[in-house]
Amino acid sequence: MLADRPALLNPVRVGLVGTGRIGTSHATLLAHHVPGATLVAVADARPAASEALAASLGVRAYDAPEAMFADPQVEAVVIAASSTAHASLITAAAQAGKAVFCEKPAGMSLTEIDQGITAAEAAGVPLQVGFNRRFAADFAAAHRLVGDGAIGTPQLLRSLTRDPAPGPADPGAVPPMTIFTQTLIHDFDTVLWLNPGAEPVTVHATADALVAPDFKDRGLLDTAVVVIGFDNGAIAVAEASFSAAYGYDVRGEVFGSDGMVTMGDGARSSLRHWDSTGRHAGTAHNDVELLQQAYVGELTEFADAVRSRRAPAVTGADARRAFRLALAAILSVEEGRTVRVEEVDR
Amino acid sequence: MLADRPALLNPVRVGLVGTGRIGTSHATLLAHHVPGATLVAVADARPAASEALAASLGVRAYDAPEAMFADPQVEAVVIAASSTAHASLITAAAQAGKAVFCEKPAGMSLTEIDQGITAAEAAGVPLQVGFNRRFAADFAAAHRLVGDGAIGTPQLLRSLTRDPAPGPADPGAVPPMTIFTQTLIHDFDTVLWLNPGAEPVTVHATADALVAPDFKDRGLLDTAVVVIGFDNGAIAVAEASFSAAYGYDVRGEVFGSDGMVTMGDGARSSLRHWDSTGRHAGTAHNDVELLQQAYVGELTEFADAVRSRRAPAVTGADARRAFRLALAAILSVEEGRTVRVEEVDR
Amino acid sequence: MLADRPALLNPVRVGLVGTGRIGTSHATLLAHHVPGATLVAVADARPAASEALAASLGVRAYDAPEAMFADPQVEAVVIAASSTAHASLITAAAQAGKAVFCEKPAGMSLTEIDQGITAAEAAGVPLQVGFNRRFAADFAAAHRLVGDGAIGTPQLLRSLTRDPAPGPADPGAVPPMTIFTQTLIHDFDTVLWLNPGAEPVTVHATADALVAPDFKDRGLLDTAVVVIGFDNGAIAVAEASFSAAYGYDVRGEVFGSDGMVTMGDGARSSLRHWDSTGRHAGTAHNDVELLQQAYVGELTEFADAVRSRRAPAVTGADARRAFRLALAAILSVEEGRTVRVEEVDR
Amino acid sequence: MLADRPALLNPVRVGLVGTGRIGTSHATLLAHHVPGATLVAVADARPAASEALAASLGVRAYDAPEAMFADPQVEAVVIAASSTAHASLITAAAQAGKAVFCEKPAGMSLTEIDQGITAAEAAGVPLQVGFNRRFAADFAAAHRLVGDGAIGTPQLLRSLTRDPAPGPADPGAVPPMTIFTQTLIHDFDTVLWLNPGAEPVTVHATADALVAPDFKDRGLLDTAVVVIGFDNGAIAVAEASFSAAYGYDVRGEVFGSDGMVTMGDGARSSLRHWDSTGRHAGTAHNDVELLQQAYVGELTEFADAVRSRRAPAVTGADARRAFRLALAAILSVEEGRTVRVEEVDR
Repeated sequence: MLADRPALLNPVRVGLVGTGRIGTSHATLLAHHVPGATLVAVADARPAASEALAASLGVRAYDAPEAMFADPQVEAVVIAASSTAHASLITAAAQAGKAVFCEKPAGMSLTEIDQGITAAEAAGVPLQVGFNRRFAADFAAAHRLVGDGAIGTPQLLRSLTRDPAPGPADPGAVPPMTIFTQTLIHDFDTVLWLNPGAEPVTVHATADALVAPDFKDRGLLDTAVVVIGFDNGAIAVAEASFSAAYGYDVRGEVFGSDGMVTMGDGARSSLRHWDSTGRHAGTAHNDVELLQQAYVGELTEFADAVRSRRAPAVTGADARRAFRLALAAILSVEEGRTVRVEEVDR
Repeated sequence: MLADRPALLNPVRVGLVGTGRIGTSHATLLAHHVPGATLVAVADARPAASEALAASLGVRAYDAPEAMFADPQVEAVVIAASSTAHASLITAAAQAGKAVFCEKPAGMSLTEIDQGITAAEAAGVPLQVGFNRRFAADFAAAHRLVGDGAIGTPQLLRSLTRDPAPGPADPGAVPPMTIFTQTLIHDFDTVLWLNPGAEPVTVHATADALVAPDFKDRGLLDTAVVVIGFDNGAIAVAEASFSAAYGYDVRGEVFGSDGMVTMGDGARSSLRHWDSTGRHAGTAHNDVELLQQAYVGELTEFADAVRSRRAPAVTGADARRAFRLALAAILSVEEGRTVRVEEVDR
Repeated sequence: MLADRPALLNPVRVGLVGTGRIGTSHATLLAHHVPGATLVAVADARPAASEALAASLGVRAYDAPEAMFADPQVEAVVIAASSTAHASLITAAAQAGKAVFCEKPAGMSLTEIDQGITAAEAAGVPLQVGFNRRFAADFAAAHRLVGDGAIGTPQLLRSLTRDPAPGPADPGAVPPMTIFTQTLIHDFDTVLWLNPGAEPVTVHATADALVAPDFKDRGLLDTAVVVIGFDNGAIAVAEASFSAAYGYDVRGEVFGSDGMVTMGDGARSSLRHWDSTGRHAGTAHNDVELLQQAYVGELTEFADAVRSRRAPAVTGADARRAFRLALAAILSVEEGRTVRVEEVDR
Repeated sequence: MLADRPALLNPVRVGLVGTGRIGTSHATLLAHHVPGATLVAVADARPAASEALAASLGVRAYDAPEAMFADPQVEAVVIAASSTAHASLITAAAQAGKAVFCEKPAGMSLTEIDQGITAAEAAGVPLQVGFNRRFAADFAAAHRLVGDGAIGTPQLLRSLTRDPAPGPADPGAVPPMTIFTQTLIHDFDTVLWLNPGAEPVTVHATADALVAPDFKDRGLLDTAVVVIGFDNGAIAVAEASFSAAYGYDVRGEVFGSDGMVTMGDGARSSLRHWDSTGRHAGTAHNDVELLQQAYVGELTEFADAVRSRRAPAVTGADARRAFRLALAAILSVEEGRTVRVEEVDR
């Protein structure tokens, strides 16, 4: 029963940082779709942006996140700003005593991520990271089946993310290893989460600039395949592309000793349209469309964890584990060899 | 953009009547999931029921709906009480100046339905009826395709509703023609809505008591097939059963001169579980599970229509059209013959 | 093991009558694809047609079927001539001592069908009728599940046939009630076969000329829905159209007290093509494409039955049962009322 | 039209070597299901085996393949013997002037494969290799779409093969690198064929013994993931397992700059069975069941190529290309590094 959750009668008052595409989506969800949460403020260093979003949602606007963190009305913070600011925003929000939800990645290095984790622990506030797929209905059901032993021991895993065409508007503005730290980070979390109890040992990454070849010399890679070997023998393949002509595509597969689960079929709904060229299903064309329920789910989990004073389902430690795989994949690409995951800990 | 809707910054304050299964579901959705609406009160003739639900949702409790209708805090009313009370509740709420959303059917006779429509018109308040499928993603997309001419002229339609096992707990307590007025009423609306501009002319119904044969002599029918002939030549089949072993099943199909749309595949999500017995998809086991997004959608539409001072997408006239087919189907079963729809207007 | 079947080491020598579309298809299958059969001759009243087909397949040509029936090399006959000749050809072939496979329908009246059955019985030869769907993998598996009790007692059945666009080339040349005797005859057999042990009691048919409205006054109907009530309470819907824009469509559904089977998803193979307009599956565009394996299956069954000296899986009695439903549907349309099946026996 | 193919009126007389599981399947198909071919003899070093199969199919038995190759009645040879004998059998058959179809691999080394190719060229006989997936309806349609440019330039490919449980009966008897030379060889051919005009450059393989861990020290690997980099930038993943609990699984995917094709959905037919635990589809449990049409297709192609005196669609050169990738994968596993494909040519 929804109404048994403590957040529902006493919704968590949330301030959001970052009014870009995903920040606007999260703010709108928090304002209208997330049970147990109430949006009370938004902050963005660009005052016009924060004021426009705040006005449309009927909440307060801040230009300095720190000012919002000082607002006693704000109990919890959702960070959807630029990735390079994530770690310092986590730290500042935690030090201000706010519960923190941060979009992935939780920092741009293990040191940064650790800094955020430490700050949250020191402040005694929950820290949740935006690995949304864990809240998608199909992936969540797969995780339950794997945990229940329904497929035996995982042996082969696959997770993929494909962004819709036409790739980044300005490939030159994208940090070179973005495909690993921003996109595949989801897939790294997925294969870690769906192979419970196992540790990744080796990583081999292959990547190229196929969508925007001109930017390869700046290091921008847009297509990547990463093979991860685990200590339980399982082999995982994480795969991404920045330019899927047919839409936003997220799929997963766990093959185990006793069976398999597969997730993601690409169809937006059960509607099929049939004409002289065949049978057609519509596809989702962006993450917000494909994953709306998952976004609501992760924010609902956050509100509930805050109000219940319990750890959220996705923690800073999970952010750290996935980021280690991103670093290992980058090292593998840079040196053209299989790397041991522990190499990135030096 | 969600935030462009006038209801969002100034949510509609809703009072709900009826705390049964669907009333509780609607109340919970209104409290936490419907953008643009705020639940402020619930009413039920059984005080313990209204108080328990009100407490869990943090709203006021009434035992008399009329008292709630007199509450100036309540702007709009959602009626989910017993069907036999629908018409008088619509009338009372409208006379109190409240916007009205009523679960189907909007009354137990055309006279009752007309009474509610008249009351709403006289009061100048919107009246929306709970034909939820229009808001399910697949049916809504089908309607757009049909309206856009993508399948040409509709020629053959199918709509079915199958409730999960094991049928009514007490078949003796169910009104005899419930399958037509409560269940197939959805399918009647669906085939009318998906054959735009056409009028139904003939109805032939076949029905039996296959789930609970002992109750057939009391007139309780649990399995029915209704064939509807339209003035544009289209032939529709509406079909229902009270006892589907495999779950809650709603499907639709419109075959036209240039193509077809089909809706509903029964799978709860894209998860597939594979084991030595094959490939398995989970099914939904009740309407709230299958249609949650549709329920949110119809209530969101209601809130938006109220705040925008416009007519809602599903009106009393729609309720009346579907109910005429229910009456024609009942007459067809009673007299064992094809009836003309206009016969029920006498 | 295929090679255990007696026909394999001693293939049945088949002569085929009728070199139209389906006759040519059957002849080609018999020549090259049907284990246990060898095509040795073809006959057609148009000598050029029989000679062309015979030459392409390396077999003898006859213009008179009777001459072919007198050929001692011919052991068995496949009849794919005009429906109006079916009964007399069955009789002549049987009287010549040949095993007989006849395309549906087995005659144009119950009297004609009985005449063929009697002739085959008198001659002691097997008579099989071309209800091909029984040999399609999905329908055959459904029949096994129904027979094993996997879905309990059938309560609701559906069978449909939709021929691809654009309908008959010359609607005026098509016998008026063709949709019942030639097309729906398959669906009638399907619902009889998938509701084993039950007898049809009532038939109500609705039909119209939607594809070629100009021909309605000649009685040509191209769109029909037939509701059949059975003595076990089951209600079946058989549905057909002469003009499906999206291809050749055959589907079935049996809903029972403990579950359901569904057959037919319209996709030609597992290939999916994804582009900016969505996910696409190809559809079959004629019966030979959709049902090739079923056609091979029914002819393999025939060869095996002939060589094993056993009754085939589909008999003249099955042809008779399905034809009774066609007659009842025609009577229902003509008189605009529900008819009892037994009325057609008068 | 089938009958336009020259083999049909003058079927190719085939002798088959090897009466194991796949040999028996091929022999049966040749005897009864392959248009344009006639089985006339079988050979196996174990006389009892060849005699039993020959008797069941009504053909001649040989114990020495060489004796069968000397039989003037035999025009063409299908080799389904042990892989270690493939190259010498190809050579002997070609030297005897017979057209040759050989199961994969065409030899156990590039030298062996070249020896067979050379012998066939010297004798002027066609040599076809058993890459059956090219003839599966979904893979063949995918190849046409890729060739037509429907998905743009291939960027990411996937091909997988999973054999059903429970893995090899005697893992100790399986050559160590079997997963690469016998199983993944199909997937290597698939990704080469579906990325036309591109050359593979790098190979990185990860493999383990997860099904039968005790045999790992003997080098038997049962689970493998191979990443192949192409000179057009495409990255392919080939994946295999010897023990799929849920059946025989073959799937493919080609993601390109303008779209995607996917092949294989695991369902044996369109039948779905629905019960209280959900919706169920049966899966294929061995290659013969899943790929029967593809097996018929490749043998039909062989017969037609022989009779038309043209090169078959799959040649010795294709066998060589796929085997190079197998060797590169083996080297990658042995040395734990990415290898360049050209390294195996030394």
